[in-house]
Amino acid sequence: MTNLNEMGERASHGKRVLSRLPAEEKNRALDMAAKRLLDHKEEILSANGKDMESARNRGMSQGLQDRLKLSEDRIAAMAQGLRQIAALPDCVGEVMEEFERPNGLKIAKIRVPMGVIGIIYEARPNVTADAFGLCFKAGNAVILKGGSDALESNKAIVQVLCEALEECGISGDVLQLITDVDRKVTVEFMRLKKYVDLLIPRGSAGLIRSVVENSTIPVIETGTGNCHIYVDKEANLDMAANIIYNAKTQRIGVCNACESLVIHKEIREAFLPKLKEILDSHKVELRGDEEIREVLPDCVPAMEEDYGTEYLDYILSLKTVGTVEEAIAHINKYNTMHSDCIVTDNPQTAEKFLKEIDSACVYWNASTRFTDGFEFGFGAEIGISTQKLHARGPMGLKELTSYKYVIYGNGQVRT
Amino acid sequence: MTNLNEMGERASHGKRVLSRLPAEEKNRALDMAAKRLLDHKEEILSANGKDMESARNRGMSQGLQDRLKLSEDRIAAMAQGLRQIAALPDCVGEVMEEFERPNGLKIAKIRVPMGVIGIIYEARPNVTADAFGLCFKAGNAVILKGGSDALESNKAIVQVLCEALEECGISGDVLQLITDVDRKVTVEFMRLKKYVDLLIPRGSAGLIRSVVENSTIPVIETGTGNCHIYVDKEANLDMAANIIYNAKTQRIGVCNACESLVIHKEIREAFLPKLKEILDSHKVELRGDEEIREVLPDCVPAMEEDYGTEYLDYILSLKTVGTVEEAIAHINKYNTMHSDCIVTDNPQTAEKFLKEIDSACVYWNASTRFTDGFEFGFGAEIGISTQKLHARGPMGLKELTSYKYVIYGNGQVRT
Repeated sequence: MTNLNEMGERASHGKRVLSRLPAEEKNRALDMAAKRLLDHKEEILSANGKDMESARNRGMSQGLQDRLKLSEDRIAAMAQGLRQIAALPDCVGEVMEEFERPNGLKIAKIRVPMGVIGIIYEARPNVTADAFGLCFKAGNAVILKGGSDALESNKAIVQVLCEALEECGISGDVLQLITDVDRKVTVEFMRLKKYVDLLIPRGSAGLIRSVVENSTIPVIETGTGNCHIYVDKEANLDMAANIIYNAKTQRIGVCNACESLVIHKEIREAFLPKLKEILDSHKVELRGDEEIREVLPDCVPAMEEDYGTEYLDYILSLKTVGTVEEAIAHINKYNTMHSDCIVTDNPQTAEKFLKEIDSACVYWNASTRFTDGFEFGFGAEIGISTQKLHARGPMGLKELTSYKYVIYGNGQVRT
Repeated sequence: MTNLNEMGERASHGKRVLSRLPAEEKNRALDMAAKRLLDHKEEILSANGKDMESARNRGMSQGLQDRLKLSEDRIAAMAQGLRQIAALPDCVGEVMEEFERPNGLKIAKIRVPMGVIGIIYEARPNVTADAFGLCFKAGNAVILKGGSDALESNKAIVQVLCEALEECGISGDVLQLITDVDRKVTVEFMRLKKYVDLLIPRGSAGLIRSVVENSTIPVIETGTGNCHIYVDKEANLDMAANIIYNAKTQRIGVCNACESLVIHKEIREAFLPKLKEILDSHKVELRGDEEIREVLPDCVPAMEEDYGTEYLDYILSLKTVGTVEEAIAHINKYNTMHSDCIVTDNPQTAEKFLKEIDSACVYWNASTRFTDGFEFGFGAEIGISTQKLHARGPMGLKELTSYKYVIYGNGQVRT
């Protein structure tokens, strides 16, 4: 039986160990963890084989099996990921601000680890190494709860990682895995507020909703992306088609893929046939309003719910508007505050859109697919936040930290 | 019957209005609101009189009546508060970071309003004007739910504020008050996630706990302060006594007051009699462990729960330790991550304490009473955050904002 309070106590010890660990030691441990993943790939692949076998027996879909399956290449990628994290600069301890008050108090705002982070995710064992690496580098102890279908794989990976940590003299308390598959334990974990400072769900919209509903721990919501591209009447139409083609088809199952187009009426006839031609190469299904269907008679009629749907598929909804204001109102109504784009050559129209669209990332003349920690140059990413508290958009190492104020006095008291 | 979805829609409209409002117009509206509070003080005092009468009839305690009662002076202070907020610089629109990627994408991180903020508070009508002023200046629409004992006062204040806004051509959608006193409505409000971006509870530990338990909206916890002062063996004992006297007695009912002392054994005999003498002037009750009681025989024995209690009263718990490590472990176990202090002349001991204590504000040789937005120079304060996500310690205007990334391209697509 899992004792979550005991795990919480261990994590508290782990965070204190980590808060004293210099960057070099953290980096050495990450490199060692990478090495040990490769050394022990046979055990990990064998554990993953067991997960795969029960998954097949239970009739898991091919798509989910693909996410669950490990291979030598995938283990090598996990190791490479840890090495990349080791090579990133350490932001912990950074002086973010410093100021002095008239009474002589000197106040410094210092970046510190968040403390203990909980990650709840689905049956993707590569997330285990990845989430550990990022949290660890930012100085946080981590408690992982992965999808139960990946339990054997996760146990094997965590064991290898903990052995590597212990080889470097670091307590395994900094990395713990909940192995109980009882859903009640997961819900109890979401309420382990006494010990856990931040909970990050990674996975489907359903998983994230369940965490938001049940958690008393502060949550960062990640991932859902109903991303829009607005093609303005003053757009370069070749550029627009190229950006849409990229944002829709380059990778369909990701949160920064484009799901919905907003088209200025005046360019319907010049643009839509060109767009259809390029999207036909991937058999993208178009679902449009009446004014779209006047130009593209084959287009499926769009329902109201189409505009609110993240398809993650070769489907695209289309809406016509008469002004940029209408485009902004439509997008702010249906988007998930993830990534939206305007294609236009008019800087005033662009500035209005960039200012008024309420999203983590708003693009002018570029694909929404760039919303990504690596593409932003953060060197790593734990997810894309779609809420406004704490972190918005791609979350790298800094977004896994907090701060504290350190105040230097010489006897000051308040009058 | 309160229709929260309708209020949410109005707030969404309000936040869009505000996102387009220049600083001058916000400041003009705040000054007008201040003026109108003074112009209409009779109506406000008369509404407050009704609240006071029912409070007396229901036998409300004197302390709560004091918080509920308005006077000409208190209304003048509310008006003055709004004028001070108007005079603060506007942080919305600030470019927080700017960088360019190798593919030519230019990325700017821009400070933006949070959106819609909900505030749940107790029967203190001055919070109504105060919370509105701060949220409004930071560009946020606000939905207020005040204590039902202050309902008439709050209605009068909100009406005056909304009239002032409308005089300035600003929709009253930016400021709404929930007037339904049914607790079910309050719980439903805590789940109005579709419209509300951030919920801030202000008040007792019980109120805050209830919000954390029930809310699906991101919450910032404020206020509970079990603040410690550690007197090291190398402390200047006069300075220590002076700081403790200030932190304990200058104002007892506030979250940054000192509740617990940690005393190095070696200085017990030199320090405790001196301390007792100064605290006796306010009849502060001391509750200590055995080693304290060896020196101060009149001291009440401390129970385990004393160390975890925020007294908000003339009571102080005392614990002896043999090392700074023990002091740190004790404080990290019992504190509420608010404010803790070390008094010592030894810089190494101080640095260890400042680094390892996990609190929003850690002091070296100064009173914990300085944890305050005004004392920090923020010019205003919505509360003191005791969580690590988003904001820690005193929260001013910046802490009521979020950010977004604006990305400028010229046709870039991802490969």
